[in-house]
Amino acid sequence: MLATHGLRRAARVRGDFPGIEFEGVTRPWATVEDRVARVAAGLRALGLQRGDRVAVLSENSAAFFELYWAAPWADLIMASLNTRWAVPEMIAALQDCAATALVVDAAFAPLAEQLAKACPSVRHVIYAGSDSAAAPNGARDYEALVVENSPLADQERGGAEVVHLFYTSGTTGQSKGAMLTSDNVFFTGLMIASPFALSARTNALCVMPMFHVGAGTFLVGLTFAASGIVIARRFDAADALKTIAERRITHSVLVPAMINQMLNAPNVESYDLTCMERLIYGASPMPPALLNRAMEKMPGVGFNQGYSMTETTATGACLLPQDHQPDGPFAHRMYSVGQPIAGNDLEIRDPSGNVLPAGEVGEVCIRGPGVMAGYWNKPAETAAAVKNGWLHTGDAGKLDADGYLYIVDRIKDMIITGGENVYSAEVENAIYAHPSVAECAVIGLPDEKWGERVAAILHLKPESSLTEGDLIAHCRTMIGGYKVPRQVIFSADPLPRSGTGKILKPLLRKTYASAGKLG
Amino acid sequence: MLATHGLRRAARVRGDFPGIEFEGVTRPWATVEDRVARVAAGLRALGLQRGDRVAVLSENSAAFFELYWAAPWADLIMASLNTRWAVPEMIAALQDCAATALVVDAAFAPLAEQLAKACPSVRHVIYAGSDSAAAPNGARDYEALVVENSPLADQERGGAEVVHLFYTSGTTGQSKGAMLTSDNVFFTGLMIASPFALSARTNALCVMPMFHVGAGTFLVGLTFAASGIVIARRFDAADALKTIAERRITHSVLVPAMINQMLNAPNVESYDLTCMERLIYGASPMPPALLNRAMEKMPGVGFNQGYSMTETTATGACLLPQDHQPDGPFAHRMYSVGQPIAGNDLEIRDPSGNVLPAGEVGEVCIRGPGVMAGYWNKPAETAAAVKNGWLHTGDAGKLDADGYLYIVDRIKDMIITGGENVYSAEVENAIYAHPSVAECAVIGLPDEKWGERVAAILHLKPESSLTEGDLIAHCRTMIGGYKVPRQVIFSADPLPRSGTGKILKPLLRKTYASAGKLG
Repeated sequence: MLATHGLRRAARVRGDFPGIEFEGVTRPWATVEDRVARVAAGLRALGLQRGDRVAVLSENSAAFFELYWAAPWADLIMASLNTRWAVPEMIAALQDCAATALVVDAAFAPLAEQLAKACPSVRHVIYAGSDSAAAPNGARDYEALVVENSPLADQERGGAEVVHLFYTSGTTGQSKGAMLTSDNVFFTGLMIASPFALSARTNALCVMPMFHVGAGTFLVGLTFAASGIVIARRFDAADALKTIAERRITHSVLVPAMINQMLNAPNVESYDLTCMERLIYGASPMPPALLNRAMEKMPGVGFNQGYSMTETTATGACLLPQDHQPDGPFAHRMYSVGQPIAGNDLEIRDPSGNVLPAGEVGEVCIRGPGVMAGYWNKPAETAAAVKNGWLHTGDAGKLDADGYLYIVDRIKDMIITGGENVYSAEVENAIYAHPSVAECAVIGLPDEKWGERVAAILHLKPESSLTEGDLIAHCRTMIGGYKVPRQVIFSADPLPRSGTGKILKPLLRKTYASAGKLG
Repeated sequence: MLATHGLRRAARVRGDFPGIEFEGVTRPWATVEDRVARVAAGLRALGLQRGDRVAVLSENSAAFFELYWAAPWADLIMASLNTRWAVPEMIAALQDCAATALVVDAAFAPLAEQLAKACPSVRHVIYAGSDSAAAPNGARDYEALVVENSPLADQERGGAEVVHLFYTSGTTGQSKGAMLTSDNVFFTGLMIASPFALSARTNALCVMPMFHVGAGTFLVGLTFAASGIVIARRFDAADALKTIAERRITHSVLVPAMINQMLNAPNVESYDLTCMERLIYGASPMPPALLNRAMEKMPGVGFNQGYSMTETTATGACLLPQDHQPDGPFAHRMYSVGQPIAGNDLEIRDPSGNVLPAGEVGEVCIRGPGVMAGYWNKPAETAAAVKNGWLHTGDAGKLDADGYLYIVDRIKDMIITGGENVYSAEVENAIYAHPSVAECAVIGLPDEKWGERVAAILHLKPESSLTEGDLIAHCRTMIGGYKVPRQVIFSADPLPRSGTGKILKPLLRKTYASAGKLG
């Protein structure tokens, strides 16, 4: 099946309807398709050959969206780079995929020369920014590619051919380029329509960074459904609230940190959010206290959790709106990530690969149309991750008797203290229930007595105060004694996060590895 | 991907919820899966080998539903026989697929011995009826297969392996067995959820005959969505109305003839049909006059046309409820069959295979995940029907500028009279607008002067009367003179129909081929 199917369909069934809106410019689907076919022609005119990689380092934009489709249209592969990486990480990814072209926007134009120099495979830098004065030296202009080329016929990249490389966000270890195929794109585009209620009547807001597959699959699904899509260059809580209210947005994908910021925004009550039908959240664990608050503040919205990863093309499990019931016999389901979406098989396995029964914690394994072809250039890592069609996610979880999945923690994040397993997420949820806490992360730190000790790093809300003793007393009322932090670290700054809003626990572990026990 | 995915998922995510209800017996999804695994074991215990064909000749039943899944579960192929066939046609199909086992219910038990004798490959007759006295001599009992065997592990028939043979309904030429693969079943099961709004909250009624792929794909989609399904043994207008009202049915697939009968049923007004969310209709053209009447009588129901064929696993195009607007600027869309559902590409081609622009009539061609692997044992017919992944449907149609598909007629049904092309559907619609007409069919009959002449065969409503002159005068007010029937034949009996309710035009052509011009 063709990766470009969704775009071609949207141009045919809703060609005159608004497709992509970005910073005041709205283009109908037929125009979007025409521009994609021209960009594809432009890329081929530069000399790019079948299967070459086009790297994109950009904030969100209409051009970024077009490149999602122009790559397979031109029989190329798009590789998206994390905008929050440090320069050495960007260079590593460019070298890893041996990109032939690098597309940058105004925000990353200043890095282009340095990156291209460090990666000799890059023969063309393309500037996709509106401020032409900011273009890197010698860069091709993206709009010129559109204007100066006649539309290319779809080269129909299809089936098992790789079309997108999404680099894993790197909360554990080195980034790896997940190879997503035409079939991955095609079938996940179809699969997510029903669970996330995407249709031609959807008007979506994309504020998730587009280098992240969570945005990618959302956008693919919306295109397959021929929805309207408003793209925001970056996330800003007040801007997002304003856009939702003014553009009558029905669907958006947000990470918990974004929801938290929106709820804490000044005058949040003044925005009319009744247009929202589905608020899809995921990419990192949602503290139940935050979810409850969000549901209270947005009573008409269908909350819809997505649990997934890059390696499954952002499909996995889904907690539907009807499963968000804070009261009653099924209230516990709100603490799950839902059930596997139709098309995915999901099993919990022990370290030997045996399938575990309901109630037992093991590794979450997923099989389905979204499972990647592997990691680019990394056969050993691929073999470890994908076995006989099953992706081994690295997440620890359990199923209940009704098939709901509960993520306990990243397997590597689990803290073993005094022989007991402690899952960070549970401790973090207890801490988040304290009204003074703005952000927290719970990690294991080396400890002579306990092997690891449970450590909490906190960032407090403005004008609030808290002592270690108060926090520990608070936690004791909620979780078992061995789970209560033995060390509390107060951070004046917000906690460091990856591009998708995940707190960078490896960095915290490194920073505080030698921090003595203070409490 | 595995054909059995949907059943396995339903058993996991809604194992305790009602799955299949048939004649007063309701089984939860976990039980349905368990029975399927036992039937699969029973079939293997009889000596059936990988890829063997299990033929089913039965009215609708829970057992029939189980066999849909038991075949791939046991690594076998299910072949379903049209219950309205004459015995020679049944024998031809059994011989064509060289079935190893034949499953019959009470209605077809009397034919089993004759069929098995004529088809020596049939080594086992299995009786799936509740009245054990009606079992054919020497037949195995279906329930015994369930009770006496331990569940077999899913043999995971997958990918391009054939799992179902659905014989085309034979309104044109000899029946051919369309080979549907695991991937066809898997992906169409996913594809139809969104356009037909199937979910775990759906409670569906299946009255379409289950040997027809229209019922098959509906049931597969419902299973993938883990819906509730009420199966009716056969269609009866009053029974269907009663079941909808009493079992609070939300979704059903009906052919126009069924809708017509339901609207004409005594006391139709007394049934509470407000539970209905989606009435999916298709399989034969819907006369607009009938559609308008149905929409008036069921104002809260979302009407949803499906246009498809066996060879695309019953996926094609779909006219959504929001496109059913009898008034306003888009009223013409009600005369279309909608837009291709996401996943399907659709083109109109001329006889040389060139793609035609919007507005021009040609052959409807479809490419997508539902396109069959081919016709069983018929490489020449397969090569003629499927070219480079595109199914050539044999239907004449055109697309409008907005991507809506208008079916003009079966290409073979088109009448050429005096050099003008006349499409039967248009003439039939004009005739159906006359209040005295219960049923009609328009065909071309050999004519010395015109090559073919337009002939109409009518069956009138009870207690009504009509003359040829009145009908022709009525038609002249609606369609061009060359389209008006030159011959009107009044039939005292209802018109002959195939098992799915299609009027058997080849039979009518044969019957009336030598009928002299009467008018």
